Amino acid sequence: MTEHATTEHASHGYITDKDKYLNRLRRIEGQARGIHKMVAEEKYCIDILTQISALKSALDAVAVGLLDDHLTHCVVDAARAGGAEADVKIKEATDAIARLVR
Amino acid sequence: MTEHATTEHASHGYITDKDKYLNRLRRIEGQARGIHKMVAEEKYCIDILTQISALKSALDAVAVGLLDDHLTHCVVDAARAGGAEADVKIKEATDAIARLVR
Amino acid sequence: MTEHATTEHASHGYITDKDKYLNRLRRIEGQARGIHKMVAEEKYCIDILTQISALKSALDAVAVGLLDDHLTHCVVDAARAGGAEADVKIKEATDAIARLVR
Amino acid sequence: MTEHATTEHASHGYITDKDKYLNRLRRIEGQARGIHKMVAEEKYCIDILTQISALKSALDAVAVGLLDDHLTHCVVDAARAGGAEADVKIKEATDAIARLVR
Repeated sequence: MTEHATTEHASHGYITDKDKYLNRLRRIEGQARGIHKMVAEEKYCIDILTQISALKSALDAVAVGLLDDHLTHCVVDAARAGGAEADVKIKEATDAIARLVR
Repeated sequence: MTEHATTEHASHGYITDKDKYLNRLRRIEGQARGIHKMVAEEKYCIDILTQISALKSALDAVAVGLLDDHLTHCVVDAARAGGAEADVKIKEATDAIARLVR
Repeated sequence: MTEHATTEHASHGYITDKDKYLNRLRRIEGQARGIHKMVAEEKYCIDILTQISALKSALDAVAVGLLDDHLTHCVVDAARAGGAEADVKIKEATDAIARLVR
Repeated sequence: MTEHATTEHASHGYITDKDKYLNRLRRIEGQARGIHKMVAEEKYCIDILTQISALKSALDAVAVGLLDDHLTHCVVDAARAGGAEADVKIKEATDAIARLVR
């Protein structure tokens, strides 16, 4: 049942402004490629670390955005539908937050 | 109006198992005091850093727990009540998550 | 031998401007106490999370400062003394950094 | 002079086991591409967040490894050479650590 709800959401476009995410993620791919190139060319270590920090920040921004969308759509919908589904969704979300925060 | 809702929740015990948090936070205070003592006694730097990491983890665990309670109570209640309140609550929560994740 | 070096440093005041750290750590203890009080008084969850983030930042600043002192004193001294001691110190330091970064 | 030292290191292969890093970074690029694909296909939000956390961990591991190499080579070399160079290198390194830890 949770599984079903999951699949349903997966195909129902919970992501607000998907193109914004796709653009950001393309940029993130480019950043990852750039870091690979910096190591290949043995750029100065500190400069590589700076790029790694920037990439992590970009990932955090995507993660927080997706989480916002998830809470706004999946969790609110589940809360409105009633039943235990909202609790399941929130547990999933806080587990994901715990992994991000670490 | 949001302000009102806030105050209301603040006094309505949204925290599940408050004693658990109070115990953990007392332990966190003790950890902070212990780190102060380690610096005062000039303990080995690396050992102090280990205690700082442990304290940060303890704080993250409290933060994620509080966030879970907040989503389960405030956000779900707001979602059920309908209107824009749920969006406001979610925006607040994701801003708080962004600060935790950084 | 490493153990010995450790003990030696522990009593040799590797910390530059110890009072600065003690003051910061006293403030950190106060912040921890404040968060305990906020939970006891059931303050608004989001406000508590904000204080937890601030406390984590304060801890990070102390950790980075101590690490700087450690590298400047212990690691540089070990490097100058020659031998494998510097590698041991650096391994310790990077392990500590890994725990902080997580 | 610092600039010179920097450039020198940049071309002198301070990175121990460069291939290991290049392989890891290629995998990281693949992870970034995978996350892009997950968003494009609107996979379940929580699963995307899990992959983002995994990617961040992989980046942290690379960063800590590079930092270890940097301390082992550049900082130790500078310490042995004497003069203020070691302090400059350590300041750079702790600034980089501060950005990683945030």
